[in-house]
Amino acid sequence: MDIHNLPDPSDFKHRVLVQTRFNDVDILGHINNTVYFSFYDTGKAYYFNSVRNGKMNWRKVETVIANVNCAYINSMYFGEQIEVCTRCLEIREKSFILQQMLVEKESGQIKSVCETVMVSINTDDLHSIPVPDDWRQALTDYEGRELTIPQPR
Amino acid sequence: MDIHNLPDPSDFKHRVLVQTRFNDVDILGHINNTVYFSFYDTGKAYYFNSVRNGKMNWRKVETVIANVNCAYINSMYFGEQIEVCTRCLEIREKSFILQQMLVEKESGQIKSVCETVMVSINTDDLHSIPVPDDWRQALTDYEGRELTIPQPR
Amino acid sequence: MDIHNLPDPSDFKHRVLVQTRFNDVDILGHINNTVYFSFYDTGKAYYFNSVRNGKMNWRKVETVIANVNCAYINSMYFGEQIEVCTRCLEIREKSFILQQMLVEKESGQIKSVCETVMVSINTDDLHSIPVPDDWRQALTDYEGRELTIPQPR
Amino acid sequence: MDIHNLPDPSDFKHRVLVQTRFNDVDILGHINNTVYFSFYDTGKAYYFNSVRNGKMNWRKVETVIANVNCAYINSMYFGEQIEVCTRCLEIREKSFILQQMLVEKESGQIKSVCETVMVSINTDDLHSIPVPDDWRQALTDYEGRELTIPQPR
Repeated sequence: MDIHNLPDPSDFKHRVLVQTRFNDVDILGHINNTVYFSFYDTGKAYYFNSVRNGKMNWRKVETVIANVNCAYINSMYFGEQIEVCTRCLEIREKSFILQQMLVEKESGQIKSVCETVMVSINTDDLHSIPVPDDWRQALTDYEGRELTIPQPR
Repeated sequence: MDIHNLPDPSDFKHRVLVQTRFNDVDILGHINNTVYFSFYDTGKAYYFNSVRNGKMNWRKVETVIANVNCAYINSMYFGEQIEVCTRCLEIREKSFILQQMLVEKESGQIKSVCETVMVSINTDDLHSIPVPDDWRQALTDYEGRELTIPQPR
Repeated sequence: MDIHNLPDPSDFKHRVLVQTRFNDVDILGHINNTVYFSFYDTGKAYYFNSVRNGKMNWRKVETVIANVNCAYINSMYFGEQIEVCTRCLEIREKSFILQQMLVEKESGQIKSVCETVMVSINTDDLHSIPVPDDWRQALTDYEGRELTIPQPR
Repeated sequence: MDIHNLPDPSDFKHRVLVQTRFNDVDILGHINNTVYFSFYDTGKAYYFNSVRNGKMNWRKVETVIANVNCAYINSMYFGEQIEVCTRCLEIREKSFILQQMLVEKESGQIKSVCETVMVSINTDDLHSIPVPDDWRQALTDYEGRELTIPQPR
């Protein structure tokens, strides 16, 4: 991940505000590093809801996280207006790549960027399977571009 | 605490929206009971900021929680618009009582009500002390009524 | 709840160590007040597993929390050995009362005490029902005393 | 990170048990992906305490996380005995690399592996600085090998 060549928040169609909580702040006075993943996770849930037109069944999730790669760029503080930007960068054979950013809304300051590899699974035996056609279609329609060709990063 | 005789959200001058996170949801599909306290804690931080005109020093907190009494009334779900209502009910010799509610904003459904006893302490030796005059004044000014006389509940 | 007349840890048959996490510590340097409920919740899960001989189905829980009343007595710090003590105090018509304590294991220092009202529900319509006989029996057998008569507190 | 060529838990000198909490479990019935970072964070705190002989000042932390790369290999469940293994892989000019694994203790099943880039900072202006000599020495002494030469992975 090249943090010297970051995407622009406006490159993301999907953005949602997340809220800092008082107990997110750790002994150093900033938002603890583990909380970033709650923000990304929440942004991802809203993203999937948008991509699937609200038809996500959270009890029978067909994709699991295989890898998370997160860069910490600037500290976050209680009370800041943080936006999670989420997009699908690329669909592969059995997986797809999400890219996310945490951005302070007023200043535009980038707090963190994260790439997540999501793997499609058979919900019965949990084995990986090719990304189902309805997921391919929904992600492609939402992003409005061909996703089987990797986005230059 | 009498949950059959609940206050009205409009009885509270201070209200702030809190946001559910995907990982707040537990195996039963609703917001886990421990998360309610993160919401109340966050509402309390914003309330104190308002009461003290943004001059809270979170590193040197002069009041600690002595007791929390929380009633669970309706389940909360991911994506609901939850508002935390906070007010000071009463100031005693060395403590004051906060009352808080969690309310779903659109429907007005009350999710939970909570009373918290906050004790004033000397930040050096952590012993309880009379509620300082600046706190008495700030709480009374904010609520706009006499707080040494308990609110009928 | 009378915190000047606390039970003794040895009054509890069920005790389980819980572990502090680095991100449990808040800006004040002690374990945040919201974490206490994660500890009580975890102690409760282990208690129910013991009472029901490991036959808890966490997807179909027949009891819900109606009220939590928690007293904060001493601060907890990262790395302390904290034990959660849990017992059933009393079984009523449609509810039962759990009492829990957080105790530092080496010093015996009591950190917190908590009483929780659990209500039995019909898992289909979520309405309260009389505490089922198998629960009454399991709790009574585990505690080894008559629970329909309230414990003097 | 090559998850087909994982280190062995016995390659790590530092291991600490972490405990699952009931509210770590998400709607899918397994430990939520965000909790992994609480485990890694806690393992890291204990590791630093060991490396620095208990002389960590958590209020004045001289290293910050720049990047986390975490692979999810097997799901974790409530009640499993999870061990966090932590070691320093390499010390660079202004940063060092920690490698961590989550392992189920009884079965030896590897749940996750994670690499974290820690950057040394000046605690006054938060700018990156060369890894201080006392940190280099403490890490090298603890691991018992030369850390300026990268470990083959």
